[in-house]
Amino acid sequence: MALRYAIIGTGGIGGYYGGRLAKSGQEVHFLLRSDYEQAKLHGLRVESVNGDFVIQPMNAYNDSHQMPTCDVVLVCMKTTGNAKLKEILEPVLRPDSLVILIQNGLCIDQELAAAFPQTLIAGGTAFVCSFRIGPAHIRHAEYGALTFAPLQAEAAPLLKQVSADFEAAGVPITYEDDLNLIRWKKLVWNIPYNGLTVILNQATDRLTFDPASRTLIRALMEEVVEAAHYCGAEIPSSFIDKMFDLTEKMTPYSPSMRLDYDHHRPLEIQTMYSHPIRVAREHGYEMKLTQVLEKELIFLERFHNLV
Amino acid sequence: MALRYAIIGTGGIGGYYGGRLAKSGQEVHFLLRSDYEQAKLHGLRVESVNGDFVIQPMNAYNDSHQMPTCDVVLVCMKTTGNAKLKEILEPVLRPDSLVILIQNGLCIDQELAAAFPQTLIAGGTAFVCSFRIGPAHIRHAEYGALTFAPLQAEAAPLLKQVSADFEAAGVPITYEDDLNLIRWKKLVWNIPYNGLTVILNQATDRLTFDPASRTLIRALMEEVVEAAHYCGAEIPSSFIDKMFDLTEKMTPYSPSMRLDYDHHRPLEIQTMYSHPIRVAREHGYEMKLTQVLEKELIFLERFHNLV
Repeated sequence: MALRYAIIGTGGIGGYYGGRLAKSGQEVHFLLRSDYEQAKLHGLRVESVNGDFVIQPMNAYNDSHQMPTCDVVLVCMKTTGNAKLKEILEPVLRPDSLVILIQNGLCIDQELAAAFPQTLIAGGTAFVCSFRIGPAHIRHAEYGALTFAPLQAEAAPLLKQVSADFEAAGVPITYEDDLNLIRWKKLVWNIPYNGLTVILNQATDRLTFDPASRTLIRALMEEVVEAAHYCGAEIPSSFIDKMFDLTEKMTPYSPSMRLDYDHHRPLEIQTMYSHPIRVAREHGYEMKLTQVLEKELIFLERFHNLV
Repeated sequence: MALRYAIIGTGGIGGYYGGRLAKSGQEVHFLLRSDYEQAKLHGLRVESVNGDFVIQPMNAYNDSHQMPTCDVVLVCMKTTGNAKLKEILEPVLRPDSLVILIQNGLCIDQELAAAFPQTLIAGGTAFVCSFRIGPAHIRHAEYGALTFAPLQAEAAPLLKQVSADFEAAGVPITYEDDLNLIRWKKLVWNIPYNGLTVILNQATDRLTFDPASRTLIRALMEEVVEAAHYCGAEIPSSFIDKMFDLTEKMTPYSPSMRLDYDHHRPLEIQTMYSHPIRVAREHGYEMKLTQVLEKELIFLERFHNLV
């Protein structure tokens, strides 16, 4: 039986992945905020490296209370909005719904589970260069693979069905059993690149090829791998080389935190830096280098508008 | 018998301290570069919080070969020019001259001793807010104390005479026996504040009062104190509180590295960051936080002109 999907947050991630599902024929309901009017009138435009497409008409909403309940809810908002997530999700959830958080950072899945103890939950990490370039207008520049892992074993069957839907929609899926592992793996890239593109005011290419910043990025990645080890997630050190390879081949890119900074939006410091630092500390490891970036980012976010 | 002084580098430091000596009646010969014509014509202007003064006529030179040999040579250039220091010093040195490096960082005294094995050498650290605001035009905004320590015991008698001359010129002097200690003590302030005013693009006040940057500054200071301990310099932890107290009372200030950065001059990263990191490592301690700042600064210096 076909699943009914909700997309919570129709930006670079939600617009792209939700758009792919809708294009493949799935029933998808999109929650938007500022882009709602545009989406209602003109649908969702995706300029993709794999071919442009438009979803029109589109099931667009600016209030989750107007949405139908759904089998699968993909949360694609920034984690800076997660304080409102419980309120947003309640109207779209059924007792047997699966919520998949395609978000960055740590502890987000557990926080959701605390709010909805009976709900099936999974996590997703996106390896994609995709961003909003205008109202209901997304540019998918590169990559696009998703990795899924369930929080509870009971979420696995439905998550596998979702994976199949994405594969059919042309999105490569890696299915993993260990959500903690995929969250930490994502941090290996996110912690150095998101922070340093803000702090050093440069895109991924210069940071990757300059010897000083490359040394720093590698040291940060090694620290994340070490912290993950203390937290029960074993990441092979070859993964660091793989991240460098992928980033070297990437078109120069400003990751989401840099875009947030440039647009004076809140930064995902808490989930991407503070939570990992705290969790690692609880497991006996101090992420010293990461703490420098965390403090610099908190400072920069606070004073960005005042210079 | 009166000492004859040379000032090598007549900027914020050399102009202020050389000016004080000259004003008190000492014979002082100033080496300048770009400010030479102005100095020759109009002398040296010092706007000091303790009263403005002008040194005119002034013994100004733009080539050390024109200078007389001197009893005491105060090196007040940035350490980024130290590669040329041997060549600059040779003409002004006698066999019994004393060279005092009023510079920032580590290993500079030993490098000079390697170039001039027979020469008496001492080090000085300035706690002063003083900077060049125009050609041969210095603004002394706050503080002004100097700390001296000899590299060799044989340098002590002459260094004490210099100290007396400075005291007579109204410059408070602290005389210490341990040069390694005063170099590390200076780094306790320099490493956090010089780097972070560049990286975070703010003056001392916001960095000191914001909780995130203050936490980072304290962690960096603790790391420097720990590194110093490994390197045989015992700095009491109360010294950190003293540095915070002094900085809190300071008028918002851009330290020398920030001024260098803003004026697209080379940064003193090597002597202020790389040397301490290396020396600490040789003594078995990794300055992890400081290494993050070092790498960020190397990157920023390299790309500052390209944004």
